[in-house]
Amino acid sequence: MLDPKIFVDFESINTDDYVIGLYLLECETTDILKKVEAIALEQSTGTWVELPGETEEIRDRSVARVLGVYEIPHYEDAIPKDVKERKFVFFIGFPAVNINQQIPQALTALYGNISMSGKLKLLDVILPKSFVKRYKGPKFGVEGIRKLLDVNGRPLLVAMFKPCIGMDAKSLGKMLFDLGSSGVDVIKDDELLADPNFCTVEDRVEECMKAVAKIKKETGRKVLYSVNITDEFDKMFKKAKAAVKAGANCLMVNVYTVSFSALSVLAEDPEINVPILAHPDFAGAFFGSPNYGVASNVILGKLVRVSGADMVIYPSYFGKVPMVKERVIRIAQELTSPYYHIKRAWPGPSAGMHAGLVPQIITDFGNDVIIGAGGGIHAHPMGLKAGVKAFHQAIEATHKKIPLREYAKTKKELQAAIDRFGVYGEGDNYTLTK
Amino acid sequence: MLDPKIFVDFESINTDDYVIGLYLLECETTDILKKVEAIALEQSTGTWVELPGETEEIRDRSVARVLGVYEIPHYEDAIPKDVKERKFVFFIGFPAVNINQQIPQALTALYGNISMSGKLKLLDVILPKSFVKRYKGPKFGVEGIRKLLDVNGRPLLVAMFKPCIGMDAKSLGKMLFDLGSSGVDVIKDDELLADPNFCTVEDRVEECMKAVAKIKKETGRKVLYSVNITDEFDKMFKKAKAAVKAGANCLMVNVYTVSFSALSVLAEDPEINVPILAHPDFAGAFFGSPNYGVASNVILGKLVRVSGADMVIYPSYFGKVPMVKERVIRIAQELTSPYYHIKRAWPGPSAGMHAGLVPQIITDFGNDVIIGAGGGIHAHPMGLKAGVKAFHQAIEATHKKIPLREYAKTKKELQAAIDRFGVYGEGDNYTLTK
Repeated sequence: MLDPKIFVDFESINTDDYVIGLYLLECETTDILKKVEAIALEQSTGTWVELPGETEEIRDRSVARVLGVYEIPHYEDAIPKDVKERKFVFFIGFPAVNINQQIPQALTALYGNISMSGKLKLLDVILPKSFVKRYKGPKFGVEGIRKLLDVNGRPLLVAMFKPCIGMDAKSLGKMLFDLGSSGVDVIKDDELLADPNFCTVEDRVEECMKAVAKIKKETGRKVLYSVNITDEFDKMFKKAKAAVKAGANCLMVNVYTVSFSALSVLAEDPEINVPILAHPDFAGAFFGSPNYGVASNVILGKLVRVSGADMVIYPSYFGKVPMVKERVIRIAQELTSPYYHIKRAWPGPSAGMHAGLVPQIITDFGNDVIIGAGGGIHAHPMGLKAGVKAFHQAIEATHKKIPLREYAKTKKELQAAIDRFGVYGEGDNYTLTK
Repeated sequence: MLDPKIFVDFESINTDDYVIGLYLLECETTDILKKVEAIALEQSTGTWVELPGETEEIRDRSVARVLGVYEIPHYEDAIPKDVKERKFVFFIGFPAVNINQQIPQALTALYGNISMSGKLKLLDVILPKSFVKRYKGPKFGVEGIRKLLDVNGRPLLVAMFKPCIGMDAKSLGKMLFDLGSSGVDVIKDDELLADPNFCTVEDRVEECMKAVAKIKKETGRKVLYSVNITDEFDKMFKKAKAAVKAGANCLMVNVYTVSFSALSVLAEDPEINVPILAHPDFAGAFFGSPNYGVASNVILGKLVRVSGADMVIYPSYFGKVPMVKERVIRIAQELTSPYYHIKRAWPGPSAGMHAGLVPQIITDFGNDVIIGAGGGIHAHPMGLKAGVKAFHQAIEATHKKIPLREYAKTKKELQAAIDRFGVYGEGDNYTLTK
């Protein structure tokens, strides 16, 4: 008989006492309940044999609970003979007392050893208040960064240096001045640019923050420079603190190469009193497969927000890094919907952004979104400054509800941008069904 | 942009304020989020066009919330070109204030108009305490019926009259005596026998309760006779009360032809101070399809228990009415796991039961299970009484951990039963993997 302590209804638990995972499993089993029970045991008190030390008291307190098991499709009478691999969705609740408040151990309970046991994907995580209360989340978030930059009622324009790597700090400072003074709000390093000898973090902070000051002085514009301080833990923290001391007003971390934990410790350090931009590189290793890993809404949404990212760059449904549109929207929802005391983070669906996409972006995400552009600015036919201008014109057109092609008739930068990159949705059904 | 009031995290709601549905949807959409939003609106405040009267205040209080949307498999980068029909699992939370405490309106919110909108199946329901508190559930439940019958430490043996319909009340009384005096605990009408002129409820109660008294007097055994009072509402209630007044000690309802509501009103009536056995006929119309309807764990499990059934007969993984084994077990778990203040109901996986199945039944369900037998008793080669005896011998063998074939060597009734019906699991993998 299956353990009645393990199989309980969702309604029978106090959700504040459990970290709950929702899973997708594809396998050839003839007894999914036995299999799910084994998973619950493996991830809490038990192992593959009965243990003499696993007392009833230990089980009561610490065994994981199976809160629901469903088959997709939910066959009732029989499994059709041509179905070899069955598909299941199920919930497991892990007693929060087993974990205390830490994401590393939550990941170990939710998807530890079982990450290596077949076609199993963690679709979502429900974190109780008792767990999340330990985290501060983004220090600034959507509203905080709007205040820092005096930007209201429109998306944030974020640009990155191009070419990605190879330039020296002085040239980057000059490029930053051109981008910031013509209308970019946040200028970020490329994820491939960390701390090479020919262009160190120290030198970049010096040159770029000089440019930031010059922009303020000459144009009145406030601009953030997000410097990539990714490194081994010990060096990363030293580098981050040194950068902030040297005047850096924003940091960037390649989160998925250093861990949520590194991000959260950084974000919660009182000395790091500047926003943090989370770059998604390497994240695909966690979420890319439809059947394995952890879903993008968790990886690029919930966990990175709880860990303290103020701005989250991630793939989008257009451009060079493909992602299913509904996933892109769900990540934005994870970053911005109410979540305990945690501030809203900026979603930045990026890669392949151009001015012709702006109406669709604002339609899909509203104004609390990062328009993150690289090639769409740098490769503008009239140059980088015109590239920035074209984005602002596209935002204006959208807010005025004027079609881009019409608005472009009197805005040569926008006209050049859409001549070069097109207008998203033309001949595309999406805008029609919206 | 999707409504940020509708798309919120599970963590952001107070689960006690919502009736939550978990759904499976299979469709060809290119925008599942838009589709799920439409479902949430359709099932709460909105309709297919924007409504001038749907104010922000109305939406805040009453709009349904989408708490999660997942694709099966959870494609991240792109939908493979050969996938025509996509599969999704999602949650919707319906504000409990919209519904108050009533199952009919909960069903209308959870699966009302949308029951007719494509391949959508309701996989599960999470009912908040604020909703369930209005229900009393089973009056007797597992423990209560054990007390009524003085049966402890073993499954309940339930038998039905066979042939199903056609006999007169006197013959049934005689059959009941034979069944009850030889070891059956509960004798139930067939679901096809309601109130025909040739064998009315009134006559059956008279004859059968005489037999019950005679059994008590002659053998000391306590026995329940579950009389089928299924009828139109008004007549059913009158019939139920008249039967109880005339001495009936148990009722049977064909729940799915009269509704959960009829059952719950009956169960909560203080005059109906006897247990109720719920028969599953017609339930397949609700749960049968893998893609449509409401899953069996809800129909034959949670809702019938909350509505007040003390004993629940339903299909099993053996015998004449096929059901996937994991579904059969999940229903038993729904009927017996802790659920607010609601008592545990007896699961009765039935149809095609014989003595050779008993070890497997007890292995899978423990002792809190109904062994419900018709043909397995009536068609025993040595007659009905020997059929009953064989079941008790099989239970003894299981409790003593002696293989049936060995135990049968000294028990001729059991030997005859397994000669006729076999032993479940012989040459079958299930017992090996257990």
